[in-house]
Amino acid sequence: MFADAELNHRLDRRTFERREPALRRALLDAQYRLLEQKRSALVLLPLGEPGAGRTEFVNALLEWLDPRHVEIHAYARLSEEDRERPPLWRFWRDLPPKGKLSIYLQNWYSAPLHRRLMRDLGRVPFLAALERIKQLEAMLHAEGHDVLKLWFHLPAKEMARRLEALAGDAKTAWRVTREDRDIARALRRRPEIVERALRETSSAECPWTVIDGHDRHWAKFDAGKRVLAALESLLAAPAPGPVPKPAPATRPPTRPNVLASLDQTLAIGASEYEREITKWQARLAHALRRKGFRERAAIVVFEGYDAAGKGGAIRRVAQAIDARFVRIVPIAAPSDEERARPYLWRFWRHLPRHGQLTIFDRSWYGRVLVERVEGYCREADWRRAYGEINEFEEQLADDGVIIAKFFLAVSPEEQLRRFRERARTPWKRFKIGPDDWRNREKRIAYDHAIVEMVARTSTDSAPWVMVEGDDKQHARVRVLRSLVKRIEATL
Amino acid sequence: MFADAELNHRLDRRTFERREPALRRALLDAQYRLLEQKRSALVLLPLGEPGAGRTEFVNALLEWLDPRHVEIHAYARLSEEDRERPPLWRFWRDLPPKGKLSIYLQNWYSAPLHRRLMRDLGRVPFLAALERIKQLEAMLHAEGHDVLKLWFHLPAKEMARRLEALAGDAKTAWRVTREDRDIARALRRRPEIVERALRETSSAECPWTVIDGHDRHWAKFDAGKRVLAALESLLAAPAPGPVPKPAPATRPPTRPNVLASLDQTLAIGASEYEREITKWQARLAHALRRKGFRERAAIVVFEGYDAAGKGGAIRRVAQAIDARFVRIVPIAAPSDEERARPYLWRFWRHLPRHGQLTIFDRSWYGRVLVERVEGYCREADWRRAYGEINEFEEQLADDGVIIAKFFLAVSPEEQLRRFRERARTPWKRFKIGPDDWRNREKRIAYDHAIVEMVARTSTDSAPWVMVEGDDKQHARVRVLRSLVKRIEATL
Repeated sequence: MFADAELNHRLDRRTFERREPALRRALLDAQYRLLEQKRSALVLLPLGEPGAGRTEFVNALLEWLDPRHVEIHAYARLSEEDRERPPLWRFWRDLPPKGKLSIYLQNWYSAPLHRRLMRDLGRVPFLAALERIKQLEAMLHAEGHDVLKLWFHLPAKEMARRLEALAGDAKTAWRVTREDRDIARALRRRPEIVERALRETSSAECPWTVIDGHDRHWAKFDAGKRVLAALESLLAAPAPGPVPKPAPATRPPTRPNVLASLDQTLAIGASEYEREITKWQARLAHALRRKGFRERAAIVVFEGYDAAGKGGAIRRVAQAIDARFVRIVPIAAPSDEERARPYLWRFWRHLPRHGQLTIFDRSWYGRVLVERVEGYCREADWRRAYGEINEFEEQLADDGVIIAKFFLAVSPEEQLRRFRERARTPWKRFKIGPDDWRNREKRIAYDHAIVEMVARTSTDSAPWVMVEGDDKQHARVRVLRSLVKRIEATL
Repeated sequence: MFADAELNHRLDRRTFERREPALRRALLDAQYRLLEQKRSALVLLPLGEPGAGRTEFVNALLEWLDPRHVEIHAYARLSEEDRERPPLWRFWRDLPPKGKLSIYLQNWYSAPLHRRLMRDLGRVPFLAALERIKQLEAMLHAEGHDVLKLWFHLPAKEMARRLEALAGDAKTAWRVTREDRDIARALRRRPEIVERALRETSSAECPWTVIDGHDRHWAKFDAGKRVLAALESLLAAPAPGPVPKPAPATRPPTRPNVLASLDQTLAIGASEYEREITKWQARLAHALRRKGFRERAAIVVFEGYDAAGKGGAIRRVAQAIDARFVRIVPIAAPSDEERARPYLWRFWRHLPRHGQLTIFDRSWYGRVLVERVEGYCREADWRRAYGEINEFEEQLADDGVIIAKFFLAVSPEEQLRRFRERARTPWKRFKIGPDDWRNREKRIAYDHAIVEMVARTSTDSAPWVMVEGDDKQHARVRVLRSLVKRIEATL
């Protein structure tokens, strides 16, 4: 990775000063076009080798660009809020909307690299972290957020020489921190760590650019040119055309399948219902009060056909829990702030803290259900979503979050009966609209999407539970029992 | 306040059960209409007297309503993030969008009431906190967020009797915490505190409702009916009509005025500029590194005519500060999440943490400038905004935030020259659009708005600094010098 960056490129001061104004104008122009086209670029500059010119470059970049449309991200220590979420949460939370140019002084590389260099992270978790980063960046790229990655390089000897020179001069000695020395030593002794990190995470879409840090004018100018080239190449990419409407599905999914094998005759009587619901609600309340849950969180996802009984089931779960520790997040059309970011952003922003249970009334699975069926996104988008969703849920599970996912099914006949009842009953009339009748006509297309969703996203850490919903009482008990067992088994 | 609530109202269980279904249906119906009309209601239930039925009512309300569209707010201890902002910040952060019904178990009354009861807050700061609350609620009401406030009351003796009964029974003794006893004792000994709080903050728009907590069925049913009545009354309020266009202004504001008295011939030469800018940037950097600033934050507001040089001045300020500690927030049209909340929300969400300086490139003054002139809000709205803005800035100042406000003026002739130059220069063409030419034609109307803004919102803790902008170098030095002096004087 570093061969080219060790050729001692140079640029004398006068040439630099002559060329700088043109570079600045071109960068500014690219920045405004980015804003206009609502593209977004994330410039990552993780630690870097001390003395190689990273800080000087960031200052120059801020000079060149219009600082009003640049966001600087620097992550110091973890806050309480950060510590109670998966490691990538803090980056998701601050993810800039489209149209911004963001500079990341610290970023998702910082902690794994730093910890690995300081021997605080083993080889296997380090590689796992890199793999996670690679997936994050691929997703960002696919969602229109380009990632530019710069590494400022100095050969080990030169780095040591510069640090000593700085430390030896009384006027500059304060700039050399103990951490700089530790990192410099680790970089010198184990250069393979950075080499590996850069190699593993250099993809066709998000390659690393290594800057020769030997000469400061060269480093600044070369890095500026590289950023410019990257911005121009992303601005030159043609805007995606309109999303083609999906072909209507005519044949139901091949049998047997998870929907066809549901037994909608399952039902329980009123007295059994009362007994069971009380029992499982009490056990749920008890489970969530256990000490182990204080270090964990839970997410309950509800998907299902319209009028399958999601609302009633959600109510029975929420009832059992102290109102302070449960949140229900109803998912409807995204806000414009949500549309300006990758589609998972709106769910990351609602992740529970420790000791909390969050219920999603519809969820990120909208991508592979309604968005797929209605043609709100491209086929390529919902096809990659399966992997992105699995990766998202794996991050939650790795962080100790308990995930329970319920799909509530209702037969077409029972659904029709409920629709008619809703239309008739004054205080239920808000629960039915033209969309519901339209969705009903697309049932075959939805069935295909549901069968594929369950097949691709039922994982060990987050399995789907299919619930027969024709009898509401049966469905509610089934949801509660299954949720309680999942929580009890995990704690 | 409590006379009516001590008449021992009663409702027997059977009557309650007979009437409950109709109440529930009516509440549900009101809730859905709220959602449909995008109105929002905040139900506040601060501490309340132990044993008076507050918790039981909240549980009942959650049973009655569709919990998917209810938000529960419970504020436990202050987080790091909370502690570095004004006390009301945490409530602003979570302020629900229009269409939600929110239940506040803790709220802006909780801390002042609790601290006053525990003798941790003097009479004067207590009354000041109540006054602040009153202003907050008046603003919420004016912005379409209704506040319903319920106090569950029990006479002191009865409260004591109930606590003893609970504590005496082994099965319920755990429910009585030490805090309950402390609060009960304080309420008994100093009943005037709650009485005063309720009286002071009962306004025509946001009155307190006191519920007789003697009989639990009565308390639950009566509180439910009161919430229903409040919701129905707010739903019955006619929707506001379209905002009338403001009449065009033809005569300039009376002289002398802050704009007419600016001396646009002020200018400095290149070498003086270099010397001065370097000097004041260094002093700014130095001032922000002082220890005192770690416990404070700073906000710098820039307003001004188009092309008055805001961007250049902002850049010179930002340059002087370590990029990690400065943020620039450009204010353009609000997002839909912002439009669904009171207009100050979008600024509260960008308040700096301790040690940070935030630059607002245009600000909350948009309300009394562009919104007033263009008729984006009613006259009543921008008229009340002066007071709301002063109150907002006072809260910031009370919390130790340093506020500096600059208005950059440019003469019509110089503005025209700059517009033409922008239109001509390729990399400046993004800085000029049809809006700028239109605004120029409304200069007289803007001048009226500016003169009134400066007169009404120049306060001791946040004075306006008017800057002559015809000479950019003069303007930049003036801004930096004034900012540094303000920060140095405060620290």
